[in-house]
Amino acid sequence: MTQKITIAIDAMGGSNAPKKNIEGLNIFLRKNKDKNDFIIKLYGKKDLIKEELSKFNISKDKVIIVPTEEVVSDEDTPMTAIKNAKNTSMWNSVKAQVEGGADISLSAGNTGVLLVISRMILKMMKEVSKPALAGLWPSKQGMSVVLDLGANIECDEKNLIDFSEMGAALFKSIFPDQKPYLSLLNIGSEEIKGTEMLKKAFARLKELSNEENFIFKGYIEGNNLMEGDTNVIVTDGFTGNVALKTAEGTAKFLTDSLKKSLTENIFSKFSIIFSYFSLKKFKSKLDPRKYNGAIFLGLNGPVVKSHGSTDSVGFYHSIDLCYKIIKGNLMGRIKNNLNHLNVKD
Amino acid sequence: MTQKITIAIDAMGGSNAPKKNIEGLNIFLRKNKDKNDFIIKLYGKKDLIKEELSKFNISKDKVIIVPTEEVVSDEDTPMTAIKNAKNTSMWNSVKAQVEGGADISLSAGNTGVLLVISRMILKMMKEVSKPALAGLWPSKQGMSVVLDLGANIECDEKNLIDFSEMGAALFKSIFPDQKPYLSLLNIGSEEIKGTEMLKKAFARLKELSNEENFIFKGYIEGNNLMEGDTNVIVTDGFTGNVALKTAEGTAKFLTDSLKKSLTENIFSKFSIIFSYFSLKKFKSKLDPRKYNGAIFLGLNGPVVKSHGSTDSVGFYHSIDLCYKIIKGNLMGRIKNNLNHLNVKD
Repeated sequence: MTQKITIAIDAMGGSNAPKKNIEGLNIFLRKNKDKNDFIIKLYGKKDLIKEELSKFNISKDKVIIVPTEEVVSDEDTPMTAIKNAKNTSMWNSVKAQVEGGADISLSAGNTGVLLVISRMILKMMKEVSKPALAGLWPSKQGMSVVLDLGANIECDEKNLIDFSEMGAALFKSIFPDQKPYLSLLNIGSEEIKGTEMLKKAFARLKELSNEENFIFKGYIEGNNLMEGDTNVIVTDGFTGNVALKTAEGTAKFLTDSLKKSLTENIFSKFSIIFSYFSLKKFKSKLDPRKYNGAIFLGLNGPVVKSHGSTDSVGFYHSIDLCYKIIKGNLMGRIKNNLNHLNVKD
Repeated sequence: MTQKITIAIDAMGGSNAPKKNIEGLNIFLRKNKDKNDFIIKLYGKKDLIKEELSKFNISKDKVIIVPTEEVVSDEDTPMTAIKNAKNTSMWNSVKAQVEGGADISLSAGNTGVLLVISRMILKMMKEVSKPALAGLWPSKQGMSVVLDLGANIECDEKNLIDFSEMGAALFKSIFPDQKPYLSLLNIGSEEIKGTEMLKKAFARLKELSNEENFIFKGYIEGNNLMEGDTNVIVTDGFTGNVALKTAEGTAKFLTDSLKKSLTENIFSKFSIIFSYFSLKKFKSKLDPRKYNGAIFLGLNGPVVKSHGSTDSVGFYHSIDLCYKIIKGNLMGRIKNNLNHLNVKD
């Protein structure tokens, strides 16, 4: 870690960049105006960034612009992107962890390209079998970490154990006051259920469970994901991706149906006035922008991927997540957890 | 098919049986009082069933009681259940398809035991590689069929093709006026995404796609499951089970949060009066009891599994589903669809 928490931001990634990125940064700076423990490095076209920055009263000692000429587009594939990669804002914002003194990188650009570039530049940690994409989920008791959300479509039990140690480290770094309770996603809660891979991972996690790293709670089924009794949920990337998107689709379906119901006649329209604040709170609690930011784990440095289509508030939450992760010493915790694995092996 | 649609019901399965089962039957009979094309056979303890039937004005020519002494409990495993199986209401309600003239069997009892017993009694269709559990999902455009929901935790491409043909047949039998649009659940919509198994199934389904059996629409992601653009969704039993339960959990989480929001203060409580009818409609559209009933496909006869904890309305919907399936000639359609497979092989 550098002396100050240094966040390298791809200012050109995502829809409506760099406008929403800089607006999001402005929200972050406003909310953290009393803190002096961080530096933001913005990678991208200098003139555009300067123009956006000039709209706000942004203190110059906390923000550094690093000019880059090219931008990775949504149409790029990892193959086409890497050809021109070295001049892009995405490449350089990740590379900043190797030679620019950054602790973490953030981009809202092309996901496939970001994963490949990150792996090329930062390399996999030697203790890790496969990297994983982790995300935050709302629960009745706060937030949970779920991984893998799609970095690996086929996994073995060794991968699931690594994901467990990394996911628990991530949870502890974001929520230092809470204990990580870890579960494996399965289609039943009894020990005998599931694939051979899950049964092997179950047995190993039972051995590894302890107060310091994580407390293993066994299997969890999809309907209990949001109960919050466990806060680190581990699965392969195919299942995790399907579960995440199914939850998103279900939430959208329900809120759309609700909206339709509440605006279909004059009485229900009238009722909205009365329930305005309650519904606002309901919406706010479940605002997906609060959970914006997937964390790519298992490389020699963390990379956060913001949704491309999020707005400035969503992008602010991703910057905040970067700050918390480094403040909470993610990399130190991951190394510690992976050592824990080796000791017992 | 017998002359009249004959439904064999395990009257003793599920919580609160046989009360809720008979109450559900009463709803079905009331709603179909002008029809004379069905017979209900009730399997279970004669005295208990008679007592429940006596509470309603039920026409004797549509309902036959077949006395059985034993009941499969929730604690039974397939092993313990099969020992005493031959005297149970569950065993005999399935056996009715072989020797009692029934077209379909319905139980709200122990799922694991029902699947094993059904397979033992009805045997797998010789054209099918593995049986599957199919369910109904709400969508913006009506209802979809999703399978496999958990009968097989590991599948190959041949299984997925069989599930496709059977799922499309099921959809057509329930919704004879609609065309089956079929998709494979995946973590991306591009043809190159996903496991080898999915890619092989994709290629084969593309060949098989036609107006008569099903129209193949390619891959679908979890967030689009409820859009309704496709109405037959095919996946392996592990993924399907996780998706189903995650959707259920998300819906519960959202409706619980909404309920909390709407009752937390006097203004929002007041608002409920105004939005009462809209919310009632919202709740009614999404009432899980309407989707109650998973269909076990691939045996020489269909078996419907109702949720054990559903109430009389949920159980009514399962009976109605049984009626529709047979009326829509499910078994004929499955055979036809599987023949279609063989012709092209």
